[in-house]
Amino acid sequence: MTTPEIHPEIAHLAWLLGTWAGEGAGEYPTIEDFRYSEHVTFAHVGKPFFAYNQKTKHEETGLPLHAEAGYLRPVGLDRVELLNVQPSGIMEIYEGTVDGTTLDLVAVQVATSATAKDVTEVTRRITVDPEGETLSYRMQMAAVGEPLQHHLAATLHKQQ
Amino acid sequence: MTTPEIHPEIAHLAWLLGTWAGEGAGEYPTIEDFRYSEHVTFAHVGKPFFAYNQKTKHEETGLPLHAEAGYLRPVGLDRVELLNVQPSGIMEIYEGTVDGTTLDLVAVQVATSATAKDVTEVTRRITVDPEGETLSYRMQMAAVGEPLQHHLAATLHKQQ
Repeated sequence: MTTPEIHPEIAHLAWLLGTWAGEGAGEYPTIEDFRYSEHVTFAHVGKPFFAYNQKTKHEETGLPLHAEAGYLRPVGLDRVELLNVQPSGIMEIYEGTVDGTTLDLVAVQVATSATAKDVTEVTRRITVDPEGETLSYRMQMAAVGEPLQHHLAATLHKQQ
Repeated sequence: MTTPEIHPEIAHLAWLLGTWAGEGAGEYPTIEDFRYSEHVTFAHVGKPFFAYNQKTKHEETGLPLHAEAGYLRPVGLDRVELLNVQPSGIMEIYEGTVDGTTLDLVAVQVATSATAKDVTEVTRRITVDPEGETLSYRMQMAAVGEPLQHHLAATLHKQQ
């Protein structure tokens, strides 16, 4: 297996590629504050998209908490689409802007399965520092009748 | 890392677990017939869902063709939800029935990103043979103005 060359339509987002690990914290009016450890991977196969995978674990017990998976699609040089699916029965399509090494994403469609909790709005900001060593994100969410507000923040470090 | 025990709410679907590999064929009025090699994985982390991953490659060149990722959620013993996302900008939420080792899935929501092709209906049947060695599926799709019709069929074999 040789690593394919990155597709030119997504080469300007290569700063996202790799595995990132670190810690995050979550809060929401309807639940207790919580902390988690997290692994995020952005990978490519030579086609004009990145596969996105995320897993979080309880900091003390190591038990799995959240997971999500999806695909990031470039739209020209300064816009992206992110499609994301969660085992909790929630799927999101985001549209976003690229500003240097920052993505600002707004969910333009949120679809939930019949047995999932109600989520209506989500925004995410993903930033990599100029050295390419630290990825941080913030997520806001409107769900279960609560207005759009801060939900998650995490800081992850490039692995290897 | 110890393998967690399967969650009791999804234990009746354990016949899906593992990695499956084989060949498939696709057709649609708007494209040339095509064949592909495929890997599918259903995995669990001890929670009441399976993570689903699929990748296909060109049979001769080995170059990546399609990919998708999602989560299968049990609804009691005889129904499921499948959430699925594709790098082509398409997301589907399926509801389905469990009949022995056969899942019959109908997409109840199909969401497409602004730059994706138009897909309006999808059905999938996934069957594992009674010995648990062969997984086969068929997929029907209505897209780009064409009515619901056969699109994909593949036969995969349990790995290891």
